[in-house]
Amino acid sequence: MTTTFLYKSDPVRGRQWAEVFRQHAPEIDFRIWPDVGDPQRVRFLAAWEPPADLATQFPQLEVLFSSGAGVDQFDFAALPPALPVVRMVEPGIVRGMVEYVTQAVLSLHRDIPAYRRQQQTGEWRPLPVRPAAERRVGVLGLGSLGQAVLAQLLDFGFDCAGWSRSQHVVEGVQCFAGQEALPAFLARTDILICLLPLTDATRRMLNATLFAHLPQGAMLVHVGRGPQLVSDDLLAALDSGQLSEAMLDVTDPEPLPAGHALWKHPRIHITPHIASMTQPLSAAAVVIDNLRRFNAGEPMIGLVDRTRGY
Amino acid sequence: MTTTFLYKSDPVRGRQWAEVFRQHAPEIDFRIWPDVGDPQRVRFLAAWEPPADLATQFPQLEVLFSSGAGVDQFDFAALPPALPVVRMVEPGIVRGMVEYVTQAVLSLHRDIPAYRRQQQTGEWRPLPVRPAAERRVGVLGLGSLGQAVLAQLLDFGFDCAGWSRSQHVVEGVQCFAGQEALPAFLARTDILICLLPLTDATRRMLNATLFAHLPQGAMLVHVGRGPQLVSDDLLAALDSGQLSEAMLDVTDPEPLPAGHALWKHPRIHITPHIASMTQPLSAAAVVIDNLRRFNAGEPMIGLVDRTRGY
Repeated sequence: MTTTFLYKSDPVRGRQWAEVFRQHAPEIDFRIWPDVGDPQRVRFLAAWEPPADLATQFPQLEVLFSSGAGVDQFDFAALPPALPVVRMVEPGIVRGMVEYVTQAVLSLHRDIPAYRRQQQTGEWRPLPVRPAAERRVGVLGLGSLGQAVLAQLLDFGFDCAGWSRSQHVVEGVQCFAGQEALPAFLARTDILICLLPLTDATRRMLNATLFAHLPQGAMLVHVGRGPQLVSDDLLAALDSGQLSEAMLDVTDPEPLPAGHALWKHPRIHITPHIASMTQPLSAAAVVIDNLRRFNAGEPMIGLVDRTRGY
Repeated sequence: MTTTFLYKSDPVRGRQWAEVFRQHAPEIDFRIWPDVGDPQRVRFLAAWEPPADLATQFPQLEVLFSSGAGVDQFDFAALPPALPVVRMVEPGIVRGMVEYVTQAVLSLHRDIPAYRRQQQTGEWRPLPVRPAAERRVGVLGLGSLGQAVLAQLLDFGFDCAGWSRSQHVVEGVQCFAGQEALPAFLARTDILICLLPLTDATRRMLNATLFAHLPQGAMLVHVGRGPQLVSDDLLAALDSGQLSEAMLDVTDPEPLPAGHALWKHPRIHITPHIASMTQPLSAAAVVIDNLRRFNAGEPMIGLVDRTRGY
């Protein structure tokens, strides 16, 4: 019986996936939601938001792939307990994130937001330049994105550290692990980059207590998930001078409504969740490789540990 | 007789030079203007603006070092014709320029100026992301700065080309040479970076004719010298849509007066000539190395060819 791979996400991207499947996995019946075909044949689903009645609608489903980097949009309680869930780990996401974070860190390092404010009043005033080696950058989250970002920032000569829940070893990077090491990591961080997954442990983690451990005047680049940040605490930290600038690619809610206080603060710089996007061609290729691994009984890249939530 | 090295530039930096000389060339009598000592002993001068009566005041002068990357601030006609003039080529300048240009190109590539404008009206609207490989970057000027910038941009995967007066070979970069190749270079360039020295040939070179050869909507990063850009032509090109954004680190005049039209255009982003600054410690070390070369009869790094003007 033919196997159906069902895609339920942005249909424009879906047509690019279809072309990759046609070329590299022609034996698979690739379909774009709502054209599900015979539900009994759907063994694989790639989705951003899966249908609510998954187990009933697709009784033969064997793997659920997220069409994006995160899986926090999934309600795990509503998914069949034994269904393998796979995050998207693909080179397009990594490249986009490295571009965005490098841009953000270099802009903060070279005082671009201050010069934008000076331009508004026609003020020509050079600010002191610090060597990158004297700028301490810290990355929260040492997964594939965090490590790729650190490799690029090391290349520019920044003084780099990283923090994660479990111990990691990254060459050239001072690695901190666990809750008890967080204050020491924050105390040595001038530019903090959040690349953590959204879990119960990271929700509202970027709050006044965390900001207070940073050196005064520290800067934030938030490219994790919106609900990790307590917006009111950020506004207060910027107003008190505890933080000096914040670049936010994620907010809570998204889209951020016009008129929200985050839009209006002169030291907050918002982009609409564009730091990194799945590139359809490389994403489809990664999924096809994971299907091969699954069929061969090998571990899939990005398989989620449901107890951790990522 | 003791040799005096006279320094006539920013005195704060001068004291850092003095410390490097004290440690690494203690045999030299290092002095900061206006404390010239015995004028007969002044064999070397590092200056941004040399004194007007150079030959009369310091008859034993053997080399003039510029304290910055350019020598366009020198009036060559007023200098003794046989006096060697040396530009500042030092790693601090290169690092600063690579940081600044990378920041500028990534910001333009990822639509940061458009998002800043959207933020003013509270508009959450993602714009399409283009892979770096589909973004054509072109660098005017293939000296040490141009080549260092290109190496970094290649690393991000941009489609890179360069133009210079004489033919260069740079790995991974399509190199164009001479006036007749300029239109072809411009026609394939989405983001144009000017890193040319200021000479009679480059004065007012960034003008309406040059902009017309770029693809519609092209972007400019100007880190050369202010008088290379015809400001009115830039304003007109932005208003017509021929150019879509311009980042200017240099202007004419500098400082740019409050109220100047360049400050006020929403698609012009100005920094006050801070892209790259001589780092006093590495600059002094480079000059000491050049003194050793001079005394050994070896060619000095950055020796200026007066017929070219750089």
